[in-house]
Amino acid sequence: MRLAACVSDRFRTVSFLSDFGAVDEFVGVCHAVIADIAPDVRIIDLAHQIPPHDIRAGALALARAVAYVPRGVILAVVDPGVGTARRAVAVEVASGEGVFVGPDNGLLAHAVALTGGAERAVELTNDAFHLAAPGPTFAGRDVFAPVAAHLCLGVDLSELGPEIDTATMLPGIVPLPRVEGEDIVAEVLWVDRYGNAQLNVDPDEIVEWGDVVSIRFDGNVRTAQRVVTYDEIGSRVGLLADAHGLLAICLARRSAADELALGSGTEVRLVRLDRDGDSGGGDGDGGAFAQPPVSTPVQLAPRR
Amino acid sequence: MRLAACVSDRFRTVSFLSDFGAVDEFVGVCHAVIADIAPDVRIIDLAHQIPPHDIRAGALALARAVAYVPRGVILAVVDPGVGTARRAVAVEVASGEGVFVGPDNGLLAHAVALTGGAERAVELTNDAFHLAAPGPTFAGRDVFAPVAAHLCLGVDLSELGPEIDTATMLPGIVPLPRVEGEDIVAEVLWVDRYGNAQLNVDPDEIVEWGDVVSIRFDGNVRTAQRVVTYDEIGSRVGLLADAHGLLAICLARRSAADELALGSGTEVRLVRLDRDGDSGGGDGDGGAFAQPPVSTPVQLAPRR
Amino acid sequence: MRLAACVSDRFRTVSFLSDFGAVDEFVGVCHAVIADIAPDVRIIDLAHQIPPHDIRAGALALARAVAYVPRGVILAVVDPGVGTARRAVAVEVASGEGVFVGPDNGLLAHAVALTGGAERAVELTNDAFHLAAPGPTFAGRDVFAPVAAHLCLGVDLSELGPEIDTATMLPGIVPLPRVEGEDIVAEVLWVDRYGNAQLNVDPDEIVEWGDVVSIRFDGNVRTAQRVVTYDEIGSRVGLLADAHGLLAICLARRSAADELALGSGTEVRLVRLDRDGDSGGGDGDGGAFAQPPVSTPVQLAPRR
Repeated sequence: MRLAACVSDRFRTVSFLSDFGAVDEFVGVCHAVIADIAPDVRIIDLAHQIPPHDIRAGALALARAVAYVPRGVILAVVDPGVGTARRAVAVEVASGEGVFVGPDNGLLAHAVALTGGAERAVELTNDAFHLAAPGPTFAGRDVFAPVAAHLCLGVDLSELGPEIDTATMLPGIVPLPRVEGEDIVAEVLWVDRYGNAQLNVDPDEIVEWGDVVSIRFDGNVRTAQRVVTYDEIGSRVGLLADAHGLLAICLARRSAADELALGSGTEVRLVRLDRDGDSGGGDGDGGAFAQPPVSTPVQLAPRR
Repeated sequence: MRLAACVSDRFRTVSFLSDFGAVDEFVGVCHAVIADIAPDVRIIDLAHQIPPHDIRAGALALARAVAYVPRGVILAVVDPGVGTARRAVAVEVASGEGVFVGPDNGLLAHAVALTGGAERAVELTNDAFHLAAPGPTFAGRDVFAPVAAHLCLGVDLSELGPEIDTATMLPGIVPLPRVEGEDIVAEVLWVDRYGNAQLNVDPDEIVEWGDVVSIRFDGNVRTAQRVVTYDEIGSRVGLLADAHGLLAICLARRSAADELALGSGTEVRLVRLDRDGDSGGGDGDGGAFAQPPVSTPVQLAPRR
Repeated sequence: MRLAACVSDRFRTVSFLSDFGAVDEFVGVCHAVIADIAPDVRIIDLAHQIPPHDIRAGALALARAVAYVPRGVILAVVDPGVGTARRAVAVEVASGEGVFVGPDNGLLAHAVALTGGAERAVELTNDAFHLAAPGPTFAGRDVFAPVAAHLCLGVDLSELGPEIDTATMLPGIVPLPRVEGEDIVAEVLWVDRYGNAQLNVDPDEIVEWGDVVSIRFDGNVRTAQRVVTYDEIGSRVGLLADAHGLLAICLARRSAADELALGSGTEVRLVRLDRDGDSGGGDGDGGAFAQPPVSTPVQLAPRR
């Protein structure tokens, strides 16, 4: 009977991201709730140490991961508005191959877009699929986790609450780089454990710029070497296409973020140094006239 | 054969809490030991960053989580007395629906009580169900994890060692609030990742106190607003019923513990401000005569 | 069909160690990649907070754990040379009961030796079993995790790339203790969460030394009590056989590493105090003539 259920369940996997941290039992209790309702479902912990309430960091991590998760439910909870009027939602994507569950606060937006966009969404108001809660503050345990489990068992979105217009969902804030003269004014999206500083710039944008690029931030000017692999960096500052297809500022086996004082959100200006390149190009220092943003939209985590 | 075993096993789940931390391989090795003995058992990590040797913190976390764990084994190891005379035990609860495994040092007591109390207990002296160990210091790996796995496979408590009188097991230390005059003298039980400070006070105790309560701690006096949801707090200090049914001191999207300097164990005096309320009530400042403790016993994590 | 696959797969378990940390989504994405390719495989996280790029710490943790992991794949990634010429390898051990997957940089060497030594090894050059990657820097996700999953499904090493001579693989660096006069000059291998400082010394080396031993490090001289269990330590410094069969310097319920300022790599000289023991022995202070290393090779994590 259990085996039959296993075969006939709609989804086998919940991929789970939150800002719950590892110190308290929050993540574990959500696992327990899911396992109690849907004992055959596998839970993949994507990340739980998103800084508390940092929707942008959670949205970017989810976007980096989403191309790799198996079909199933994606449960994401960074929810500073828990217990307020913000909506709790489930969002179907990819012809029903995936369902996002979480707060409608922008957290899900990038990842939903990367999977092709929302096809159907509901607000999670039917408390028949929630746990009775002593208080309103732990929606991860009381609303989102049980809904994720019930979705795996085959409950349709329409049972979870009223359908909502996907156009009314909060968009994510993707910081786009802008062009000023011939410069690209970018931003650090993410500093990883190794201190690599990922920029919101597609390497194609500077493909004709030559091997050396000037990077300017917080009053600093550094020359970065464009490289393909870490071992070309040597003692220089490296600029390479990272594992998500974006430019990153790196040092060899040391933390670029620590040594250059780069953090998430730092503005970084990329200045072309090969002024006699085939693209001609103006003077990056003087030219302050407005330009359209760079042509290639930022692609996070392209599908393999 | 494997499938048959899967269906006939007594338990499918081990819920696991410890102070092993995440830096060393302690938790992973316990997972490996369980998976090696009982490959079909699911392990739910409740929490592993209980401060080293902090039995009280472990006991409270286990009590917060226990209502949510699936039927099965609950493995809990915060064990400063490992390698001493403290007993290693297995404790059956809930007509055999659950078995706690861990040290008899008070760690299990709250959670056992919340599940209805110990029905049968044994001391884990039969080393046929342990691993041979090079040293006596890692009972999680060598005693508790293999016993948990064997329980899942159907081994009865009576095979694990001699039955012990459950009345001889160490009780947990639940700090009860006390009444002084009309005040309630409470204690911070837990500060969570978001800085909410949970008190050992049932909201029912102050249900007739009005919307504003004075809280006094470490020489500070603050006025707290009683709220139901976070977004009523605004820039004030909030006092709400948290996700475990206890009063908690909160700020909106900031850490109350950091800003008010509250930590686990801080004594907090709740003083009624609506002196003309229907309960009449004396002068909280002057009245130092002893009173019985508050009437409602603290209920951690009531069953959904 | 799924069930049939489950039964016929070569391996059911991937045991996974890395320096990926818990803050980023690196570990979770590797889980997702494995689950997507091999949905029935269990992943055991041994440790992921190895200090970034610290091959020695990763190799020692893997060696401590390896005796306990179930048959299957052991995936280990501490890889400062990712994206350079270092080889990515799979190494078969124990008549095919285990396969290590990771970089050929010494990380795997101790653990491979403890399982009986490499029997067959290949370089992971066949990118049919890798993910297409936007950049070269996340081999865990793009090379090692998918290869681990395919090995579980039954792919033979010979399909993954050309066989390499196991004698050409990088050895691990095991710091051996040395004898000077009658002293043993040892080194702290590991400080665990509780502050116990493990030495690279087999307890058998000092079995005839009596109950008290002088330990000298960084200009300090302390007398350590040889004990079997923690509760014999009292207020003294204890020296006991730890859970991996090596001598460790311990305090009772406090951190020996913090209080004595011992860290990984600290040199510790053990000096015999019972000079009238049956072994006679020279003067540890004067005798600086060279001696062979101690006779018993260090045994990490002996098989139960």
